[in-house]
Amino acid sequence: MESSHTPRLTAAATPGRYLRNAWYVAGWASDLGNDPWSRIFLEEPVALFRDAEGVAHAVEGRCPHRFAALGRGRVVDGALECPYHGLRFDGRGACVHNPQGEGRLPHTGLRSYPLVEAHALLWIWMGAADRADPALIPDFSWLNDPRWAVVRGATLAEGHYELYTDNILDLSHANFVHPALVADAFTTGQRRFWQEDGQVHSEYVQHNAPLSVGLAPLFDAAGHDMDFYGHVEWQAPAVLFFDYRAGRPGTPREDCRSLPSLHAFTPATGDETHYIWATARDFAVDNAEVSAGMLGALKYAFEEEDLPMIRECHRLMKGQDFWALRPLVLEGDGGGVRARRALQRLIEAENNDNTAGADLALAGQQEG
Amino acid sequence: MESSHTPRLTAAATPGRYLRNAWYVAGWASDLGNDPWSRIFLEEPVALFRDAEGVAHAVEGRCPHRFAALGRGRVVDGALECPYHGLRFDGRGACVHNPQGEGRLPHTGLRSYPLVEAHALLWIWMGAADRADPALIPDFSWLNDPRWAVVRGATLAEGHYELYTDNILDLSHANFVHPALVADAFTTGQRRFWQEDGQVHSEYVQHNAPLSVGLAPLFDAAGHDMDFYGHVEWQAPAVLFFDYRAGRPGTPREDCRSLPSLHAFTPATGDETHYIWATARDFAVDNAEVSAGMLGALKYAFEEEDLPMIRECHRLMKGQDFWALRPLVLEGDGGGVRARRALQRLIEAENNDNTAGADLALAGQQEG
Amino acid sequence: MESSHTPRLTAAATPGRYLRNAWYVAGWASDLGNDPWSRIFLEEPVALFRDAEGVAHAVEGRCPHRFAALGRGRVVDGALECPYHGLRFDGRGACVHNPQGEGRLPHTGLRSYPLVEAHALLWIWMGAADRADPALIPDFSWLNDPRWAVVRGATLAEGHYELYTDNILDLSHANFVHPALVADAFTTGQRRFWQEDGQVHSEYVQHNAPLSVGLAPLFDAAGHDMDFYGHVEWQAPAVLFFDYRAGRPGTPREDCRSLPSLHAFTPATGDETHYIWATARDFAVDNAEVSAGMLGALKYAFEEEDLPMIRECHRLMKGQDFWALRPLVLEGDGGGVRARRALQRLIEAENNDNTAGADLALAGQQEG
Repeated sequence: MESSHTPRLTAAATPGRYLRNAWYVAGWASDLGNDPWSRIFLEEPVALFRDAEGVAHAVEGRCPHRFAALGRGRVVDGALECPYHGLRFDGRGACVHNPQGEGRLPHTGLRSYPLVEAHALLWIWMGAADRADPALIPDFSWLNDPRWAVVRGATLAEGHYELYTDNILDLSHANFVHPALVADAFTTGQRRFWQEDGQVHSEYVQHNAPLSVGLAPLFDAAGHDMDFYGHVEWQAPAVLFFDYRAGRPGTPREDCRSLPSLHAFTPATGDETHYIWATARDFAVDNAEVSAGMLGALKYAFEEEDLPMIRECHRLMKGQDFWALRPLVLEGDGGGVRARRALQRLIEAENNDNTAGADLALAGQQEG
Repeated sequence: MESSHTPRLTAAATPGRYLRNAWYVAGWASDLGNDPWSRIFLEEPVALFRDAEGVAHAVEGRCPHRFAALGRGRVVDGALECPYHGLRFDGRGACVHNPQGEGRLPHTGLRSYPLVEAHALLWIWMGAADRADPALIPDFSWLNDPRWAVVRGATLAEGHYELYTDNILDLSHANFVHPALVADAFTTGQRRFWQEDGQVHSEYVQHNAPLSVGLAPLFDAAGHDMDFYGHVEWQAPAVLFFDYRAGRPGTPREDCRSLPSLHAFTPATGDETHYIWATARDFAVDNAEVSAGMLGALKYAFEEEDLPMIRECHRLMKGQDFWALRPLVLEGDGGGVRARRALQRLIEAENNDNTAGADLALAGQQEG
Repeated sequence: MESSHTPRLTAAATPGRYLRNAWYVAGWASDLGNDPWSRIFLEEPVALFRDAEGVAHAVEGRCPHRFAALGRGRVVDGALECPYHGLRFDGRGACVHNPQGEGRLPHTGLRSYPLVEAHALLWIWMGAADRADPALIPDFSWLNDPRWAVVRGATLAEGHYELYTDNILDLSHANFVHPALVADAFTTGQRRFWQEDGQVHSEYVQHNAPLSVGLAPLFDAAGHDMDFYGHVEWQAPAVLFFDYRAGRPGTPREDCRSLPSLHAFTPATGDETHYIWATARDFAVDNAEVSAGMLGALKYAFEEEDLPMIRECHRLMKGQDFWALRPLVLEGDGGGVRARRALQRLIEAENNDNTAGADLALAGQQEG
């Protein structure tokens, strides 16, 4: 579970700053129990809760009465109760109970956000509801497939979400940021970056080389050279799949042992990012010690090594635009640069789209 | 005593943002002893101290020499000594001692603020001194009447002061924010809101109903139904009296046992509020256990339940104007909305008033 | 060693706000060992490190690739390695190693800053490199002269650096801020302030008077009256020498026992200042107890008494210009006012100077 820290909001959110018509990961489905969540996504307060049937819902997180954080309330009779004066709202955002006086219901309701529970995750759609097609949710079915043992986490991390995307698409950072995961494959091995069907790919291949000391034991690779395949797949806005795969030299790629990972980044604001991650294995799935070791090592790598590095980069950028700072582009940036450009084009297209424009105007009205 | 935390000031204070010609509560008189106070009221630094005769004074809190916080100095020979270079100022703000060289006194003095000690409180007037009429101070004489045992507190609370005013004028929040103080009277009992002689009133009446579990013991009401009368009286800018009163069914209202309360809110900035509160009883006045229990319960209710709720509302408002956010108005808002409108009219009248304008210009000059 | 706290940067640095063509103290030379430093000077990130020969260098502190804090990296083969993706830069800022792919070196390098190790200090030049004349570094040779025992410190202090300069040039504050160092000499003794050859001087002389209780033991002055000479010498931008000197009445000034001090202030931002200080003695130089006592007392005076006072002044100034606040000028301000005016003239001259203008444009290009 994430902490309850509330990112700092300002009134001056830039319109059209984020891709709205897209599925963002809101969190782990099983972490949302009886207690609602109060979250900030794309600078908007959002409350998430489960109704009486256990169906998860996401609604506007600020009560229209006196602006209380609805996600800090409780669920009563399947409705979300405002913790301040007790108005209750259902999963569609309609006010269903007013404890005051004769209980007349106000006409005003909450904006509700399409929310889908899939692949052990909650996926939220921050744009026009009529465009929210669950078929667009990427397939992470291994996350709740019993053949895979999953370790996972979620944290609110300082730094712009695209810095986090860059980080996964350029794994050459591992050699410096994660000493235990050092692998020449990421810097000097065969690397290939391409874009296809709206997705961006970074691929790393190396034959007959030692694995990193941190990961070798999981592949029974101590003392052996191995063939290694790393494949990162990005899709907008900021959902990444990483397939880490290795086998004895000559093993066909599809027969290699694999450690698939999810890295999903959902912007809270321009300065803070919800980082939801998981890594799975399909061997020793019942071995709690292996799970504990993987959880500890990965949580340390992502939250204690990546995060402080990216936080400092973000601070030194002083709120300036990434491209305006004219970054030096290295070979390893082939994935990150493609993803940034693809996302930028999607955001621009959305902002130029009249229909989307009307949706935004509507959203603005409800906000304002 | 409040903590010494200094609210964050910005140069860009909005002129005419606050009602200036009014009495604000500066704090508890007996809390101001030998050590001066450094405070921010209405975005202005203010120093409070007692002179050799014990008379309390309030002066500009920033030394005109090198801008030290005068309220962090000490009192020497009845004058407030700057903690940095030792200039001393009397209660009228005149410089009365210069430790340097031959001791020539600078012509510049400090602005002084009318300050009156009344009803155990210090009342400060942040506007034109010649309008500061002590007769305008509301009567809270029970606060230092020995027939009443008083428990009290003062804290610097995050959130705009009008959110705190709203909170007291709409007691329906108690059912949700203060579980131990739940009372149907506040939501479904007879409620009435009106404005009269510049004051705003919220009244709650309920007959033949149980009291809240938290308060029943103080009224010997366990197991009995009671008649209940709650009456909140607001006066500008943000001083509220709450008369909580209950008796066995049929008891004339004036014969009921009463728990009178003070809730005074003095803006430090637009984001932080000095919250000064007290509740008294005229029974078991010498019973220290009853006092300790009341103090603990009320301090918890006001500082651990109300404050976090209002702080989150304030943050989710992102610095935007209350009305611009088009709040949903419920029946229980009859008091709060009247008070907001009355205060707004007073501030506008003051800003339009030529004399007040001149006063402000003068204050601006002194500010620099 | 200073803490690793990073001052908050904003994109909107005022051009021409600081004197650039001047030597600033970057820190204590012996504190820079194998681990690089990440610092902010004049709102610019700077990395400092020692190459394979032990020579100290200062380069732009933000990697041009993905903006990582280079000073958080490590030194490999005498070059500074970026902690994020491993680019290495030499002391001139040239990229000398790219771990990626075939290792092609990018054309972009880092800006490097002239850095000189002198008098136990590192001196950095934040302006045009071709003007960086080491002969302009003030003589603090006593700092690494074995005849002197030195106690010293460095801290990142809240408040504008000129407030810290003022503090040393007007020692009358000692009577109020440092009770143990009280000396009438600073307020009522003979005082003289003058400017000469670009330096500003504050001088305090008093004959036949007791020393402060805190310092008397160091001068064997307990129970005796003494002659006292205090001399502060400022030079732009913010480097001060303080000669504290006392002897039995009638002792020639040059024969008095002396406690020379350095107070150097290097702006991190407009709100935070690197404060580097030292005090030395030429008696009991091998007495560790005397050193420990001096270190404790001076560290307390500078960091626990001066800093909180100046921090509060800074906050109450609310980011406003010093002169716009029309400060009251007292006799003791003769030094501080001269230094402020001299620095202001130097900054204006530099901003008006075409050559300097071109330098700044160049620096801006590299930044932007």
